[in-house]
Amino acid sequence: MKVFDSAEEWQQIRAALPHSLSLGLVPTMGYLHEGHLSLVRAARRNNDRVAVSIYVNPTQFGPHEDLAQYPRDLDRDLALLEQENTDWVLFPSDADIYPPGFSTYVEPPEPSRLWCGQSRPGHFRGVCTVISILFNLVRPSRAYFGRKDAQQAAVIRRMTQDLRFPVEIVVCPTVREPDGLALSARNVYLSPGERRHALVLSQTLAAGVERFQAGERNARAILEQCVPLIEKTPGVRLDYLGIVDQNTFTPVETVQAGHYFIGAIYVGKTRLIDNRVFEG
Amino acid sequence: MKVFDSAEEWQQIRAALPHSLSLGLVPTMGYLHEGHLSLVRAARRNNDRVAVSIYVNPTQFGPHEDLAQYPRDLDRDLALLEQENTDWVLFPSDADIYPPGFSTYVEPPEPSRLWCGQSRPGHFRGVCTVISILFNLVRPSRAYFGRKDAQQAAVIRRMTQDLRFPVEIVVCPTVREPDGLALSARNVYLSPGERRHALVLSQTLAAGVERFQAGERNARAILEQCVPLIEKTPGVRLDYLGIVDQNTFTPVETVQAGHYFIGAIYVGKTRLIDNRVFEG
Repeated sequence: MKVFDSAEEWQQIRAALPHSLSLGLVPTMGYLHEGHLSLVRAARRNNDRVAVSIYVNPTQFGPHEDLAQYPRDLDRDLALLEQENTDWVLFPSDADIYPPGFSTYVEPPEPSRLWCGQSRPGHFRGVCTVISILFNLVRPSRAYFGRKDAQQAAVIRRMTQDLRFPVEIVVCPTVREPDGLALSARNVYLSPGERRHALVLSQTLAAGVERFQAGERNARAILEQCVPLIEKTPGVRLDYLGIVDQNTFTPVETVQAGHYFIGAIYVGKTRLIDNRVFEG
Repeated sequence: MKVFDSAEEWQQIRAALPHSLSLGLVPTMGYLHEGHLSLVRAARRNNDRVAVSIYVNPTQFGPHEDLAQYPRDLDRDLALLEQENTDWVLFPSDADIYPPGFSTYVEPPEPSRLWCGQSRPGHFRGVCTVISILFNLVRPSRAYFGRKDAQQAAVIRRMTQDLRFPVEIVVCPTVREPDGLALSARNVYLSPGERRHALVLSQTLAAGVERFQAGERNARAILEQCVPLIEKTPGVRLDYLGIVDQNTFTPVETVQAGHYFIGAIYVGKTRLIDNRVFEG
């Protein structure tokens, strides 16, 4: 496994890679957990080479968000990636990605408008910008994202299609703790008490899907039952709950299989997101 | 020479092109003149394959601009490109470039802020978006642009660098009529009288460069001498004159070799731009 901390050195390797070899990219912000590693394994299964980027991208954090505290542990990350037979790790600096005079940004497409796009102004602009940069630097055949960040995956899929990046977007299932909590680097912020209260998000989303499976098709009815489950939980503040089309991330009135039940909550100062797919 | 009117058919050709072959792209809006053909010749000299795109990009026109009237003559364009040994012509439809749901745009970098960026809101956003799409569709080794659109070239160069497109940007000299008028598809709009008055732009820019060559280094002094030359010309309205850094397109106070003298005028309803480089 080779680690690159400069884009220039990496670009020489990339230029020498035969056209015929497929390359899978897993873009991450590090502090890797089983969710990330499941993406690396999926990339490993379907590509000749696997590259993982570790970059805490400042442009996708708002001014009052957790950029400075975002957890980092490079040594541990590299040991885990080595175990997964990763070929290349890109660990660029801010000066490498955003050199002096940098001023081009990718305006994210329509699926970015609501939900996390409203709660985190500028977030998806930062995501689309850094993913465009990574796509051009790495030129992967396929790029892997987690379903936990379902809106991000829809935004990146639409951006890739609109700007014609020659990259296949692969979205892999959310990995959860045994009690249902979706894995996230931000779970490390939670105190033991908060950790217990945080469970309400995955439980509420699961309850909504159960209502669908029991025959309910009215989105408002499902939301009206689910919102109070979150609002009554101590120390938890609802950001949003929504039932949306899986491509456009616009709200639906009548729920169909394939639609997403999405949610975001604050547990203390920690913001967590999760989602479930409505399945027959 | 093969002409593609669908991106999909083109992509199959592109995918089969050996990695080792270089590919030059000349993006145009058609109605080709010697300026465009000089770009095709430059591409031909330095690349194994040459692709020319002909696409009147709607997103770079403002709502009150000349999109509908913009001159078109595909048969003539194809005959000219055939003579220049062009390999491939891409002639996509609007539905191909901007399919339903398209909503990702590239926010142009800093050099887009002033001048044409102020006179034509949204223009460089449209340019950066379509060039990003073309870069991803064509994946050229080099892309060729004319110096006549100097601000556009600076914007595209900065965008290419910021987003890390693996494309070399080549900027070729402005081609002029014998009397100095810079070639432009929009010259076709000019009546014989307007055609004579339009000359004031290239003449004024040349006069400014002469002042520099005679020792003047004060940008304001050069502008104060040059603005009246345009303002006194009948039927001509000044949009802007500026003396700028060649990379950032910000105004300079002290002129140095390499800086640009840039201008835009309206002759009747026709907007024309031109520039000259300050040279020793």
